[in-house]
Amino acid sequence: MVAKMTKQKPTSNDATKSSIWGGRFASGPSQLMQDINASISYDQRLYQQDIAGSKAHATMLAACGIITSADCDAIHKGLGQIAIEIEQGKFVFSDSLEDIHMNIESRLAELIGEPARRLHTARSRNDQVATDFKLWVRDAIDAIDHALADMQIALIDKATNHADMVMPGFTHLQTAQPVTFGFHLMAYVEMLGRDRGRFADARIRLNESPLGAAALAGTSFPTDRHMTAAALGFDRPAANAMDAVSDRDFALEFLAAAAICAVHLSRFAEELVIWSSDRFGFISLSDAFTTGSSIMPQKRNPDAAELVRAKPGRIIGALNGLLIVLKGLPLAYGKDMQEDKEGVFDAADSLGIAIAATTGMIRDLTAKPDAMLAALQQGFPTATDLADYMVRELGMPFREAHHASGAIVATAAAKGVDIEALSLAELQAVEPRIKPDIIGQLSVASAVAARTSFGGTAPDEVRARIADAKQRFGLE
Amino acid sequence: MVAKMTKQKPTSNDATKSSIWGGRFASGPSQLMQDINASISYDQRLYQQDIAGSKAHATMLAACGIITSADCDAIHKGLGQIAIEIEQGKFVFSDSLEDIHMNIESRLAELIGEPARRLHTARSRNDQVATDFKLWVRDAIDAIDHALADMQIALIDKATNHADMVMPGFTHLQTAQPVTFGFHLMAYVEMLGRDRGRFADARIRLNESPLGAAALAGTSFPTDRHMTAAALGFDRPAANAMDAVSDRDFALEFLAAAAICAVHLSRFAEELVIWSSDRFGFISLSDAFTTGSSIMPQKRNPDAAELVRAKPGRIIGALNGLLIVLKGLPLAYGKDMQEDKEGVFDAADSLGIAIAATTGMIRDLTAKPDAMLAALQQGFPTATDLADYMVRELGMPFREAHHASGAIVATAAAKGVDIEALSLAELQAVEPRIKPDIIGQLSVASAVAARTSFGGTAPDEVRARIADAKQRFGLE
Amino acid sequence: MVAKMTKQKPTSNDATKSSIWGGRFASGPSQLMQDINASISYDQRLYQQDIAGSKAHATMLAACGIITSADCDAIHKGLGQIAIEIEQGKFVFSDSLEDIHMNIESRLAELIGEPARRLHTARSRNDQVATDFKLWVRDAIDAIDHALADMQIALIDKATNHADMVMPGFTHLQTAQPVTFGFHLMAYVEMLGRDRGRFADARIRLNESPLGAAALAGTSFPTDRHMTAAALGFDRPAANAMDAVSDRDFALEFLAAAAICAVHLSRFAEELVIWSSDRFGFISLSDAFTTGSSIMPQKRNPDAAELVRAKPGRIIGALNGLLIVLKGLPLAYGKDMQEDKEGVFDAADSLGIAIAATTGMIRDLTAKPDAMLAALQQGFPTATDLADYMVRELGMPFREAHHASGAIVATAAAKGVDIEALSLAELQAVEPRIKPDIIGQLSVASAVAARTSFGGTAPDEVRARIADAKQRFGLE
Amino acid sequence: MVAKMTKQKPTSNDATKSSIWGGRFASGPSQLMQDINASISYDQRLYQQDIAGSKAHATMLAACGIITSADCDAIHKGLGQIAIEIEQGKFVFSDSLEDIHMNIESRLAELIGEPARRLHTARSRNDQVATDFKLWVRDAIDAIDHALADMQIALIDKATNHADMVMPGFTHLQTAQPVTFGFHLMAYVEMLGRDRGRFADARIRLNESPLGAAALAGTSFPTDRHMTAAALGFDRPAANAMDAVSDRDFALEFLAAAAICAVHLSRFAEELVIWSSDRFGFISLSDAFTTGSSIMPQKRNPDAAELVRAKPGRIIGALNGLLIVLKGLPLAYGKDMQEDKEGVFDAADSLGIAIAATTGMIRDLTAKPDAMLAALQQGFPTATDLADYMVRELGMPFREAHHASGAIVATAAAKGVDIEALSLAELQAVEPRIKPDIIGQLSVASAVAARTSFGGTAPDEVRARIADAKQRFGLE
Repeated sequence: MVAKMTKQKPTSNDATKSSIWGGRFASGPSQLMQDINASISYDQRLYQQDIAGSKAHATMLAACGIITSADCDAIHKGLGQIAIEIEQGKFVFSDSLEDIHMNIESRLAELIGEPARRLHTARSRNDQVATDFKLWVRDAIDAIDHALADMQIALIDKATNHADMVMPGFTHLQTAQPVTFGFHLMAYVEMLGRDRGRFADARIRLNESPLGAAALAGTSFPTDRHMTAAALGFDRPAANAMDAVSDRDFALEFLAAAAICAVHLSRFAEELVIWSSDRFGFISLSDAFTTGSSIMPQKRNPDAAELVRAKPGRIIGALNGLLIVLKGLPLAYGKDMQEDKEGVFDAADSLGIAIAATTGMIRDLTAKPDAMLAALQQGFPTATDLADYMVRELGMPFREAHHASGAIVATAAAKGVDIEALSLAELQAVEPRIKPDIIGQLSVASAVAARTSFGGTAPDEVRARIADAKQRFGLE
Repeated sequence: MVAKMTKQKPTSNDATKSSIWGGRFASGPSQLMQDINASISYDQRLYQQDIAGSKAHATMLAACGIITSADCDAIHKGLGQIAIEIEQGKFVFSDSLEDIHMNIESRLAELIGEPARRLHTARSRNDQVATDFKLWVRDAIDAIDHALADMQIALIDKATNHADMVMPGFTHLQTAQPVTFGFHLMAYVEMLGRDRGRFADARIRLNESPLGAAALAGTSFPTDRHMTAAALGFDRPAANAMDAVSDRDFALEFLAAAAICAVHLSRFAEELVIWSSDRFGFISLSDAFTTGSSIMPQKRNPDAAELVRAKPGRIIGALNGLLIVLKGLPLAYGKDMQEDKEGVFDAADSLGIAIAATTGMIRDLTAKPDAMLAALQQGFPTATDLADYMVRELGMPFREAHHASGAIVATAAAKGVDIEALSLAELQAVEPRIKPDIIGQLSVASAVAARTSFGGTAPDEVRARIADAKQRFGLE
Repeated sequence: MVAKMTKQKPTSNDATKSSIWGGRFASGPSQLMQDINASISYDQRLYQQDIAGSKAHATMLAACGIITSADCDAIHKGLGQIAIEIEQGKFVFSDSLEDIHMNIESRLAELIGEPARRLHTARSRNDQVATDFKLWVRDAIDAIDHALADMQIALIDKATNHADMVMPGFTHLQTAQPVTFGFHLMAYVEMLGRDRGRFADARIRLNESPLGAAALAGTSFPTDRHMTAAALGFDRPAANAMDAVSDRDFALEFLAAAAICAVHLSRFAEELVIWSSDRFGFISLSDAFTTGSSIMPQKRNPDAAELVRAKPGRIIGALNGLLIVLKGLPLAYGKDMQEDKEGVFDAADSLGIAIAATTGMIRDLTAKPDAMLAALQQGFPTATDLADYMVRELGMPFREAHHASGAIVATAAAKGVDIEALSLAELQAVEPRIKPDIIGQLSVASAVAARTSFGGTAPDEVRARIADAKQRFGLE
Repeated sequence: MVAKMTKQKPTSNDATKSSIWGGRFASGPSQLMQDINASISYDQRLYQQDIAGSKAHATMLAACGIITSADCDAIHKGLGQIAIEIEQGKFVFSDSLEDIHMNIESRLAELIGEPARRLHTARSRNDQVATDFKLWVRDAIDAIDHALADMQIALIDKATNHADMVMPGFTHLQTAQPVTFGFHLMAYVEMLGRDRGRFADARIRLNESPLGAAALAGTSFPTDRHMTAAALGFDRPAANAMDAVSDRDFALEFLAAAAICAVHLSRFAEELVIWSSDRFGFISLSDAFTTGSSIMPQKRNPDAAELVRAKPGRIIGALNGLLIVLKGLPLAYGKDMQEDKEGVFDAADSLGIAIAATTGMIRDLTAKPDAMLAALQQGFPTATDLADYMVRELGMPFREAHHASGAIVATAAAKGVDIEALSLAELQAVEPRIKPDIIGQLSVASAVAARTSFGGTAPDEVRARIADAKQRFGLE
């Protein structure tokens, strides 16, 4: 019955024959073993990196006199053809060959014969897979950095156009103080900037080449690991062969950065869901990113935002999963480490689509200033300004001013109006020292304009920070 | 660039036209939205459950006079044909139809016309998907229970044959006391018994039917939810429609039980890895569950055990992921919940194959009594027996006997022999009251035979507990 | 510098002397080792369970003739006094005695002398700690079950009083269909019912006694494990000694149940935060469960709800942490397992206070029917009812009726009114077959009243299910 | 009953009176609310950072003319006294004052009166707590970096002394190829180097000051945030006030780096446990880091290593927990964020002690070359060297050489000897081209010496990399 649950795998009755490690074994691996062992269903995504790594390795072997130039040329040519076959969908992947590395090597042997059997000299699957996977993660980081920069631009564009649009700033989802929509959006530009920084740091840190570390101890062939490192864009070869094959920090750090980034996106997605709800109505999302209902024809559901909100689940799960796999694992290599890729692939896919969907939602969304203003009629958003006035103009200690402002809010609440609508007499009934110059200082426009401190919500300050951000994040 | 990372999806330019919720929307969903929204790539695994649910729903609608018998018959016939098409691989799944439910309904409309458009009366995708998914999880539980019982049998068979075979019992991976191999294996029979109990409890708890809860509030059609519940093998309909559609406890509880079970398997896998290492050599695994190395021809790697050891990573990750998705999610339904299935599918697949592989390894493994006995020469495994002797025969308080035994171990260690090899005089030099009857009581065979307390390692006691276990776990 | 970060521990310079395992060691454990090793700072919470276990063990040892009745009496008396000392805060806990077990045994020796040194006969710290911890978890389950039942009662009371109060039912936080507040609350009664079931099942499953399993292999003393099991309220002794000491399933299962329960509470907490926001205003929370702001005197922050919403973080973290600790851990006991308690203690505390706070918020909250009704003016909540009408009365297939209803919603949206406010002519302009009897069927009151299917939102149905629930969950 | 489980809190019946936000509320917060709300039991660890932040804030307020110099002086003096009171254990922390910030401010008011009530001008608890917590994390990073450098030195010292000591290199815990003990230890120096890099990057990224962001929107007072940033050692003020108060990336990134580092330590701990087991016996741990057993006097348990191995559980749990708390949390501040500190504190404590204990174990451990050599008699560790010989000297393609080497291993295994012990004739029976110069090339010493590729295990290469590492990691 369990078999029914497991993914269908193509049957192969030549597993023993073709297996590269079948030499010593009397009986072949069972089908079950093949099912649990084979990774080709997902690691075929490494084909570009595997081919690039093998080309660099062959070139180095030839340069060091370990194989002939003719063999090297044949290997390059064969690998080039394999790349084309895969890209054209003509390559036949075989479960019995277990992984992408053996699928490619086996096909290479079909194409070029003996030179293919010399390619694996002075390397092992251990350093090969570490190299391939690192290269893939590096490519993923580059793609994500590009996508995050694009999202920052979308936010900055929207923020520039809405630097003056007043909305409630919330804490605890309660109206706290008025802010501008542009100011609020710029908070996410900062978050994404840190995300890009984390990915960039991870990229620098991972950029040491495992290739040539061989199984775990280096090799006795006169190789040049600096040469392959340079050819593959690495800064240097990894300095300890055992570490080079057992290290998956690059995957963990990628997942950690992805998880934090996904949490940022989920916070924005939650705001989109709330802002686009009937009761808030601060924004409307475009048709492209909402859906209807099969039973409720009136619905306009923020499905894309909800899916973005949910994505941290699987990405944190993937981070967690790989940390668990590696916890307590002795060096140098255990098959446990084969579990390293699927989570990373899924996290990269999930984060990539979440960034793209969020960027699309930002570009498409329409802000609704009337609803934002209407919301500011509730919740006494300028109570802090009143307290600050009493500190600044009346010289009251902050804590006393805070209490007096609270009492005035209570007066307004009892009367069912905002504090801006109270008369001077009503204000003075609580705090006699309040002066006529208070008039006009309790409007949301005044309140926003007054917060000119560095990084504050005053429109001119927001515009100044937008200008900074473009430069800091290289978006100009 | 991100696009390169995301899974390839078949392009469809008729998304808007065929979408069931396209009525109100001016522009169609973008390709990006379709990519993030579509679930058909994985939820097609629910096809059997979806068809069973729809059949039960149609039968009920007809019985309640909501649709005609003719329509009901047409629906049944059409669904039957669709099941065949899917099983024969002839069904064309479409991304633009988003999910398995709409793929089937759309095909049904092609096959039988108007009656198909009546099927969705008095139900919603919300209760439909909850029903399908529950049925799938229920089937998975049944399959896993069967597999776990099979593994218990394998353990019991092996334990029965090795109830007398002495090996070191470890704490802290240090030799502690001698045990028998059969006794050690029976520890896992208990763990699996609890696992089966957790899955069985989860099955009972999930067995309430969501079908007919409609979108979130029930329906005004005169339906009979008890009838559909019974038809699908549920114990009763779920009592609150909003809970019925928002509940994913069954998935969480399944994942929690799977995670705990996977941890059990990982503990056994770690023992297999250690026991089959060159230094321990307590067992040998069969060729079917080990592999060789591409660079080291002598290797006999316990790959299957290592993969089983690693599986908790992804299963705990899946549990974690779904808890995260559901945390803080307001009722009744959010698209976030679409993230509920992939983790469950993967966990069920992973657990299923891990159980099967472990069962295979158990059946195939060969115990090596000589290595086990040799290991018992180290670590003074009968020191506790010596202390117990002093308590029992000399009336010493346990804590004093413990100290005296420790001193005798120090004597033996200094001499480089086991305590069994010390002379009576040497023993009495530390504790003069020790009597000649100590001779023979410090052998590992004596030590094992003496531990006759309930659940102890004495061979007869192990055999008695094996007999019990067969009965308790229904394995006879 | 690290030392500054670690918790301050009382220094003891007699660690070597008093340590129970110091016999063989030349040098004493370093202060660092003591810091990492000692658990007394948290496991002192097990004192009641430890004393109960030791009393039961002593009674059994005497009954089996292993110690004298006089020793047994002395032990009971001494342990009784220690319980009093601890409860009165007079007991001096010592880090150098590592854990609660040795702290109590050491004090017992001070109080009664030699008999104390006989107490540990035929047991080990391994079975002792497993027993104590199981008993603690069992007590925690009982306390949580009681608290959850109390919360169910609070929900049922509130639901009973609000079974008719109409509010928007949401999917995707968009208005979907009208429901009643009582109906919505009853969804949580179901969730809590399942939570209680999970805890109850965990309690049954854990109720096997580890006591007497000794270190890992049982004992050669003629003990009666059934006797101690019965004395401590266990159903039976655990059947395999090695499993008995290595098993922490009971802690994992407790944490899993707690995590799922905490997710339920977080969903409700999120709803409380949203409902009590200025824009929704569906409820107001009492002063007792809200706070103000240091800078914004007008704020009324739902702090308690937010803290409840956050609690799944630490509880899921604790579950995750213990799964990680146990993953791949060989039998029978590793010091790793000392990490089992803090997470469980914290999870029990966190869940306990979250349940209590939520129960308090439920009891205290005030529903605001006007705001709920006002919200129902938006979002066309009866569009489904219109579609259902067309199916039921006009015989239209559901999918067609759905499209027609969507078109009518578009008409109403264009006019800026609810569909209830459209004239018959306007309705017939879209679907000519609509009859005058539609009038009155599109009000939210009608819509709610019509959903009489089992588990639906119709007030009478809600009341019927409330009556059921009281019985099912033993709340009468 | 739940109350029994929750931590005891000091009762205060003046909560309402003294609460800073009590102004507007008719009834005081219940004891339950205080229990769930108060953070003083753990956030008192922020006292140094809170005092430093307040001093910097006061100085800036005076410099900007917002308070007088006299007030500023009084504040500084009062805060200085409070620091002394706390360090001397004389400060009375009050639960009713909720957190460290109000405890200090309240005491300040007692000490200096009105100026204390001016301190909170132009700031909020939101930016205050973000500042304090960042400063604490920054201090923790500095402490951990120092401790990790110390551990690198310990590893390098040990590696330098054991650069020639031959041991089995394992993959899959099977003997793969011979390596040196120094080489193996250097793998961890690389890991710790990356750990230090991650912490250093996190430190740079966090070093933006939140102070002055106020509640969420900045302030209307003419503050100078650059001045407070500089005073507290920050590189600059955070550029967006809303981000400044809602950001907890610094805590997440710290936890992620800690989790990865803890996994590294756990891998080493697992190796220590295995290496110090009776069967391996490669090392012995010092008495200072091992313990005995209460029931088995001969045991020498690697408790410290096991606890280090377990620590990833709680640290990953803490990372997971905070990611969950922040997932989907709308800006700017929710009380959920109060859950940010305990996990970070515990992770820092746990990592700190794990690093210190591991460093101690490394310094103290004794390597046992005889056991390592004996182990190399098993597992044919030079089979790769034989294959490489055939490639290098006989010009065989690697894959063929691999098969031939496997056949020779089979011959040796059948004879029960290592391949080094086979005669030339026996070798040539499998591969006739093998020449007499093979003699001597199959010893473990030759094999190790030959692996001179960059980062390989050849002793001279190890020494060269040690020299590099000292420089790269600034350890000279």
